[in-house]
Amino acid sequence: MHNKKIGELELIRYIRKMFPKRRREILAGIGDDAMVLGNGMVVSTDSFVEGVHFDFKYFKFYQLGFRCMAGSISDLAAMAAEPVCALVSLYLPDKVRKWDVTELYRGFRAIGDRFKIDIAGGDIIGSPFWGVTLTVIGMTRKPLLRSGARPGDGLYVTGYLGLSETGRLALKKKRTARHFPASIRRHRFPIPRVAEALKIRPNATAGIDTSDGLSTDARHLAEESGVKIVIDADRLPIHPEVLQMTRRIKTDPIRFILSAGEDFELLFTARRPPSIALPLTRIGEVKKGRGVWLTCGGRSRPLEPSGYEHLSGRK
Amino acid sequence: MHNKKIGELELIRYIRKMFPKRRREILAGIGDDAMVLGNGMVVSTDSFVEGVHFDFKYFKFYQLGFRCMAGSISDLAAMAAEPVCALVSLYLPDKVRKWDVTELYRGFRAIGDRFKIDIAGGDIIGSPFWGVTLTVIGMTRKPLLRSGARPGDGLYVTGYLGLSETGRLALKKKRTARHFPASIRRHRFPIPRVAEALKIRPNATAGIDTSDGLSTDARHLAEESGVKIVIDADRLPIHPEVLQMTRRIKTDPIRFILSAGEDFELLFTARRPPSIALPLTRIGEVKKGRGVWLTCGGRSRPLEPSGYEHLSGRK
Repeated sequence: MHNKKIGELELIRYIRKMFPKRRREILAGIGDDAMVLGNGMVVSTDSFVEGVHFDFKYFKFYQLGFRCMAGSISDLAAMAAEPVCALVSLYLPDKVRKWDVTELYRGFRAIGDRFKIDIAGGDIIGSPFWGVTLTVIGMTRKPLLRSGARPGDGLYVTGYLGLSETGRLALKKKRTARHFPASIRRHRFPIPRVAEALKIRPNATAGIDTSDGLSTDARHLAEESGVKIVIDADRLPIHPEVLQMTRRIKTDPIRFILSAGEDFELLFTARRPPSIALPLTRIGEVKKGRGVWLTCGGRSRPLEPSGYEHLSGRK
Repeated sequence: MHNKKIGELELIRYIRKMFPKRRREILAGIGDDAMVLGNGMVVSTDSFVEGVHFDFKYFKFYQLGFRCMAGSISDLAAMAAEPVCALVSLYLPDKVRKWDVTELYRGFRAIGDRFKIDIAGGDIIGSPFWGVTLTVIGMTRKPLLRSGARPGDGLYVTGYLGLSETGRLALKKKRTARHFPASIRRHRFPIPRVAEALKIRPNATAGIDTSDGLSTDARHLAEESGVKIVIDADRLPIHPEVLQMTRRIKTDPIRFILSAGEDFELLFTARRPPSIALPLTRIGEVKKGRGVWLTCGGRSRPLEPSGYEHLSGRK
């Protein structure tokens, strides 16, 4: 009867079927990065657990706070919403050091201040493990959903993919850390693309933040929009540090990028590319059909999702 | 350096100091039952952890879902808000039975449907333990805060206090369960006082739902309003089952009621009592000063909070 194989996607499909959208106030619900209400309010929750999402061997509490809050704000960016405030639900183990809690909240504040976010509530409970659920609230005039991609659109990504995972690997092998400054910075202190999201909004038809690996993130866009997405492997922007790391670990950089998550870049579809300050790359296109395909050296093949599924806890 | 004695209240005080309210959109934040925005949106989060808030020995997943969602909706009732939707953050242990998750969501739906709530999102993560964080969203025209009590107001409570704790104790001793039907129903399937909250709103000056025990709940009202609250022990409504239970466990019923939590009744202050369908009792009054006092047989004494503090995990 025990079933280790229930994945997050299967559960979400099931829950979605169980809870069809009924209230008119709700413009977007289960299946998108965040919930959107008719009045422009965007609400998103994100949870992080010790041993699954973070390891205190590599993370200090300040970094943890920063990173969790950055990831949550990124969900607002994915909807082209401006952050307003956050609620913090803290699962605290018995042996809590006050200093650790202080540092965690300092991390929340460091990134929150950058986006003028107030911590406006939450709750704190005793628990056998460290865990954090962040609820972030934002406002948007026109939400960027996952469901608007149309055949003929281009597929774009901001910045570089795979940097955060490169940073994580570099931190694991301490000797190599100094060769990967940009990756480690991205892993510890990612900056969500809020300003960029607002800039691309007029051009974009659908969007998501890259948190689960390119193949999975693209699949979300394809599924919710009912289209086929073709990623052009030859166009994927590869950061020098990502290239260096994939050489060291003897992995194909394309394969690496397809499954490496938590860069918190924006992946979106648009007819014409918008103009933003960040590097912006057209990495594919939207076609009629279903699923995600990868073109490499002129040949196409369907791409299975290889991203992080949080329930299975592994790549 | 380890400090087991950090209580929830101390941490909340600390966090509040660290995060002063800065954004004008936020009408009420840390320190109230929920956050209120200027547009009338009310958002609250509540977390529940296996072994701390519930024990699968006494709770089936359906009941657990029902009870957690009811507790969260009660936070909206406490603000006189009408529920709109909820986000579910689920911490799932590795060995998950699909049936258990289904039952949990059936419980969410049973109480959610009663209040026309949509489950509009959330997230699911792998975790070493079961945990649930619910974020509920509601709308209010005029929020009922904890901070409006004024000297001269009466202190009122809906229904009966101590029923849920009586139910919990009755379930622990299976032989006695059949003598406590109302208490067990309240413990398993509490119904938040949403309709009553909307009715009392025009009369009420401050309010809270009874979740941490009368003495602690009254203290929240006194602290946030900057007043003294005097509870009249002789007026506390005592349900026959509560009386029966306190006789069995040889406890004073007044002391029991002061610390027994999670009844999800409304505790509020008002100049004149409103008219509602539920039993409504004037149990004390608001005076100039500070703190919570108990009057018993004409004599008054200051009351220390004896309610449930979730971090310490005991009464």
